[in-house]
Amino acid sequence: MNASPAKAMLFTAANTPFSSLSVAFPSLQKGEILVRNLYATICASDLHTFHGRRKSCHHSVLGHEIVGRIEALAEEGAKDYHGRPLEKGDRITWSVYAHDPASPTSLKGFPQKSEDLYKYGHEQIDDHYQLNGGFSTHCHLRKGTSLFKLPEALTDREAAPLNCTHATIAGAMRLAGSLSGKTVLVNGAGMLGLSACAMAKEKGASHVWACDLSIEKATHAKAFGADTAFEAESKDVPHRIFGPDKADIIIETSGMPEAMENCLHMLGIGGTIILVGAVFPQRNLSINAEFLVRNLLTIKGLHNYIPEDLATAISFLTKAKAKYPFDSLVGREFSLEQLDSAFEAGSHGKYYRVGVKP
Amino acid sequence: MNASPAKAMLFTAANTPFSSLSVAFPSLQKGEILVRNLYATICASDLHTFHGRRKSCHHSVLGHEIVGRIEALAEEGAKDYHGRPLEKGDRITWSVYAHDPASPTSLKGFPQKSEDLYKYGHEQIDDHYQLNGGFSTHCHLRKGTSLFKLPEALTDREAAPLNCTHATIAGAMRLAGSLSGKTVLVNGAGMLGLSACAMAKEKGASHVWACDLSIEKATHAKAFGADTAFEAESKDVPHRIFGPDKADIIIETSGMPEAMENCLHMLGIGGTIILVGAVFPQRNLSINAEFLVRNLLTIKGLHNYIPEDLATAISFLTKAKAKYPFDSLVGREFSLEQLDSAFEAGSHGKYYRVGVKP
Repeated sequence: MNASPAKAMLFTAANTPFSSLSVAFPSLQKGEILVRNLYATICASDLHTFHGRRKSCHHSVLGHEIVGRIEALAEEGAKDYHGRPLEKGDRITWSVYAHDPASPTSLKGFPQKSEDLYKYGHEQIDDHYQLNGGFSTHCHLRKGTSLFKLPEALTDREAAPLNCTHATIAGAMRLAGSLSGKTVLVNGAGMLGLSACAMAKEKGASHVWACDLSIEKATHAKAFGADTAFEAESKDVPHRIFGPDKADIIIETSGMPEAMENCLHMLGIGGTIILVGAVFPQRNLSINAEFLVRNLLTIKGLHNYIPEDLATAISFLTKAKAKYPFDSLVGREFSLEQLDSAFEAGSHGKYYRVGVKP
Repeated sequence: MNASPAKAMLFTAANTPFSSLSVAFPSLQKGEILVRNLYATICASDLHTFHGRRKSCHHSVLGHEIVGRIEALAEEGAKDYHGRPLEKGDRITWSVYAHDPASPTSLKGFPQKSEDLYKYGHEQIDDHYQLNGGFSTHCHLRKGTSLFKLPEALTDREAAPLNCTHATIAGAMRLAGSLSGKTVLVNGAGMLGLSACAMAKEKGASHVWACDLSIEKATHAKAFGADTAFEAESKDVPHRIFGPDKADIIIETSGMPEAMENCLHMLGIGGTIILVGAVFPQRNLSINAEFLVRNLLTIKGLHNYIPEDLATAISFLTKAKAKYPFDSLVGREFSLEQLDSAFEAGSHGKYYRVGVKP
């Protein structure tokens, strides 16, 4: 193991420059792995945290969209999610959380809400776990993290958003069920939205609409599988855009209350809306239950994902990269030392993702 | 066919006595059937209509929870849902609606919202269709009605609520999926709620809670499979009743906005609430989307049901009648001429159902 200490950029308070922290390499406990981070992208939720738009742990290492290379394993015989042996030098991604598969909530099928869940890029550092995020030279993976060896075809910057953006959307697609012949509206054409357009198209959706407050962003979704783009605006949108049939499935990625309320009126009979964007404090939605009942509507909330979704996302991206320019979505790259500038660049909304190369 | 005319009790305006109408027997068109009504029960939605709590057609024949005996068929060779031949004298129930199975919405799996849907007990009479409800000596069944020959084991008063109450709850159970080992809360212990308790228990729920504004009604649900009964009250209920785990599935039958909002907080991680009661105009719900997302919650609205659900309900009731006293739920019976008194009796909330024997 490299003798020189690792370095983490510490988030200490909202809107405050990161502090550089030198960290001795940890002694690995059973089932743990030390990874050298190759690439991390700044997720919208990192920005929410940094700007104080949601309550988060201070003295933490942000960044959870990461790829890395195994530097050390606690013991031999470690395997990835698919049962492939893992060894030093393997390039991997991993679930955004470590969970206990034997916990009651995991056993119910919700490992992402497992008792004693540990989320990379979200937890306060302690004496033992300081390398617990992406904006750091290394990441210290705990037991109960689902690991995935990465195909060589994927570049680091394509692969970094896998374990948050693409896996979450794969989870939304799992909740949506078969899309074959169905119409899909993707609301919010940011990183999650582009992934949703492409995945819906690849899953056989008969028509994919992309909607955003910005018509430029909505239109950009056409390069990612959207058939039609439109600008979010007034309530007459459903009639004008959809005609009588409206959407079978909506993937709502913006998390804006107005958008979610409007979207309900864009669902056809028996339609389903999957909410993935609402991960920040906000006003309550105003929803008419009689309307839900008479239109046979379904609303599903999804936060994070299950390991199977990350497997789906990797397989999707490996195939879909030839068709959709995911690699182009990282607009700028910064070194770890330039993390403050990286967050500044990420906050302008100009780039889908900003990359950080430790 | 009987030469003496049929008689229907006409609903002409809210809170107005019914008018007796003599009707000549209709000439049956292809695929149609004339049924002599044996028994009809007054559903809560009949009461909503009668009391003007929702917009409904005037000059209609109310009553849609009906059993009858076939009096005439337009042609030979008619079959029921299961393919069993139908003939004069067969005792049957039928879907609350006639639908076009080839319509786009039916083909999507939502026959209860088929284009040109025709709902018994809900439509304005016209020159040809006057016998279109339960509070009438006869019912004129249109093409596209799903028909079910009834097992002899079921009494008329047990069977009457099949094609609304029990079929709707069977639909809710279909939406809930497997209940094996799951905890179920039934909110609202009226007719729908009792059916839901029994069906949940028979589907293998590990625990069934019944909740109602009236502790007497909630407690009565124990005779229908509920393990625990409690009174709807303050927001501390979830902690006191459920402990940390809360409910996996909630079947909400009251349709009261406050109840639906409270119920969301009684759902455990990954829980699903199925709304079936909200079929009358009401204030909007106030729902926090971040709460839905972080708790992986699902809200499903269901109105009416698909024919398969009515098949499930008949099969359920035939088996479950030995265990649960469904026959006792009709508190009083009236003749067709006494329909005004029947509605008065039904409006007091004292009886789960009031029966009308034409």
